[in-house]
Amino acid sequence: EASQRVQLVLITGGLGPTKDDITKKTLAEYMGDHLISDPETLRNIEDMMTARNIAMNPLNVKQAEVLEHATVIRNSCGTAPGMWFQKDQVLYVSMPGVPFEMKTMMQYEILPRLQQLFNGQFIQHKTLLVTGIPESALALMIEKWEDNLPSSIALAYLPSSGIIRLRLTGNGTDRNKIDQQISQAVSELRPILGLHLLSENDESPEQLVAKMLTEKKLMVATAESCTGGNIARLLTSISGSSAYYMGSIVAYSNDVKIKMLQVKASDIEQHGAVSKEVVTQMAENVCRLMGTDFGIATSGVAGPTGGTPEKPVGTVWVAVASPSKTITEMFRFGNNRENNIQRASTAAFRMLAEQLSSFSL
Amino acid sequence: EASQRVQLVLITGGLGPTKDDITKKTLAEYMGDHLISDPETLRNIEDMMTARNIAMNPLNVKQAEVLEHATVIRNSCGTAPGMWFQKDQVLYVSMPGVPFEMKTMMQYEILPRLQQLFNGQFIQHKTLLVTGIPESALALMIEKWEDNLPSSIALAYLPSSGIIRLRLTGNGTDRNKIDQQISQAVSELRPILGLHLLSENDESPEQLVAKMLTEKKLMVATAESCTGGNIARLLTSISGSSAYYMGSIVAYSNDVKIKMLQVKASDIEQHGAVSKEVVTQMAENVCRLMGTDFGIATSGVAGPTGGTPEKPVGTVWVAVASPSKTITEMFRFGNNRENNIQRASTAAFRMLAEQLSSFSL
Repeated sequence: EASQRVQLVLITGGLGPTKDDITKKTLAEYMGDHLISDPETLRNIEDMMTARNIAMNPLNVKQAEVLEHATVIRNSCGTAPGMWFQKDQVLYVSMPGVPFEMKTMMQYEILPRLQQLFNGQFIQHKTLLVTGIPESALALMIEKWEDNLPSSIALAYLPSSGIIRLRLTGNGTDRNKIDQQISQAVSELRPILGLHLLSENDESPEQLVAKMLTEKKLMVATAESCTGGNIARLLTSISGSSAYYMGSIVAYSNDVKIKMLQVKASDIEQHGAVSKEVVTQMAENVCRLMGTDFGIATSGVAGPTGGTPEKPVGTVWVAVASPSKTITEMFRFGNNRENNIQRASTAAFRMLAEQLSSFSL
Repeated sequence: EASQRVQLVLITGGLGPTKDDITKKTLAEYMGDHLISDPETLRNIEDMMTARNIAMNPLNVKQAEVLEHATVIRNSCGTAPGMWFQKDQVLYVSMPGVPFEMKTMMQYEILPRLQQLFNGQFIQHKTLLVTGIPESALALMIEKWEDNLPSSIALAYLPSSGIIRLRLTGNGTDRNKIDQQISQAVSELRPILGLHLLSENDESPEQLVAKMLTEKKLMVATAESCTGGNIARLLTSISGSSAYYMGSIVAYSNDVKIKMLQVKASDIEQHGAVSKEVVTQMAENVCRLMGTDFGIATSGVAGPTGGTPEKPVGTVWVAVASPSKTITEMFRFGNNRENNIQRASTAAFRMLAEQLSSFSL
């Protein structure tokens, strides 16, 4: 069905060892081809099973089967190989369905081959990270600039939790001209965005602060209440994080805030755990306890329950302690727990990035 | 193009306030309809902006526009309304693109309407969580059972990090018969799976332990090295987690392991941070320091760098301390950092669930 409409069909999944995995058999029938065992794939599977101390069984051996006339694409993260083949002007690529296996194969094997195949036509992206302004207000702020963009440059607003990714896309055959138009547009946009421009690279907020901390050789620790370890998780999702990250105290209960983070019980009593006073102590104390340059702290009502009239669901305090001062901000996010946790984390990274950009030892 | 092939077209995105959001205009042209401002949607947008302390602007007002002849679907999490309309036997549903807004609308508004519309035909799923066995070994173990399944029941293997979801799907017009066939199949499968059967509900491992802890009124704390806060994040992703979760010490550096978790420096020196000795102390000490019934600890080489010949990338120790004993397991996962962190977290939840299922006060 797809082959009637398109020239490239990307297929994921159904390559596993179990009876419900029928992709290879189906493709073989469709192509009028048959399955043979690929020696290199078999060796790859054997090596992988050995490394994980798992015994090979007949189903694993079967995973080395591929279409005889397909180009085999190595799966560096798993046992199911990819395949690449053509029929009647249509290109088919079969990839594993396990997300990280598919993503790795797509990035390192499939996209480079496709780029080579469709050489001559360029699509260039430039993505800016914008923060601290709602999407609709941003649109009004940059309206004139947007109206004056050359017709070859398209603009997309890609909002996520607390960050808007502004993506400029140029499309054409003259790569230098596209690059030049994009960089001209960015030069004009920079002064309009001012401090709202968080980064000129398409990176996550945690990648941005990781880069800044590593460059400046600074360390950070976190004290998390409502974000429950999410900031720690994001900071350690990056390889090499031990260079800038010391650790976290996830102080989900008030007991832990008092006992482990040395927050004054009287301040929790008087102001509540979701307060400027408590979040300030959390950030400053975790900094001191772990011996880091910077400390991040969060305390809020993630929801969907637990709100009060004065502190409704979505109320979050964030503090960033630096050697010279501690800054705090209060936010009113929405009713969605997952989104509130993510927005609070993003806000913390944005506040840390602002501190870091003006910080020199 | 889609309307030539299908009877139901689900559309997401393009409903925002910015110039690149052209879905509503395009749909109006396609339907021969025009856009009008919907008073209820406008009120919803105004309420939402007020709650977040954001001033309304002309672009926000425009977000209340809908196709005159469409049924408007309320967006409970955001400003862009959904729409539902029909043309030439094809049903079209337009939903916002922000993931959590779309998911909420799909779950609470769209799916119930579709279920009513396509009444009479039932699809029933039953999902079992299986753990501690590779997919191919599981397939061999349950081969006979699978071959004897009635033809009306389909089986899917859905593997993710350390857990295989076995999904039985029954399809037909007689709901009682489908239910009865599925429950018969599960009864036969139960003794074959034995201890590999982690849960008979389609829930995440963290939901499983959250339920068990809440029921038994027990508390857990975590001490995380290689998982870097991911276990804390998963446990607190569930609303009501303060009932069973006390907090975590994310001890990413050895300093924090020694100073905050009171791990013996001599043991880190002698056995390394990735060792049974260290992970045991981490689990037992966090339990004692935070005053909980159970403690979870992880220490490993998440990768992609940092491996040694004795402790290659993917080596992870996990400990679960309970009032009576501490159990530990060593794992050899793969080379993918994200996957190693997720698999270690899943393993920890599985080990805790095993302890909890045999635990009574």
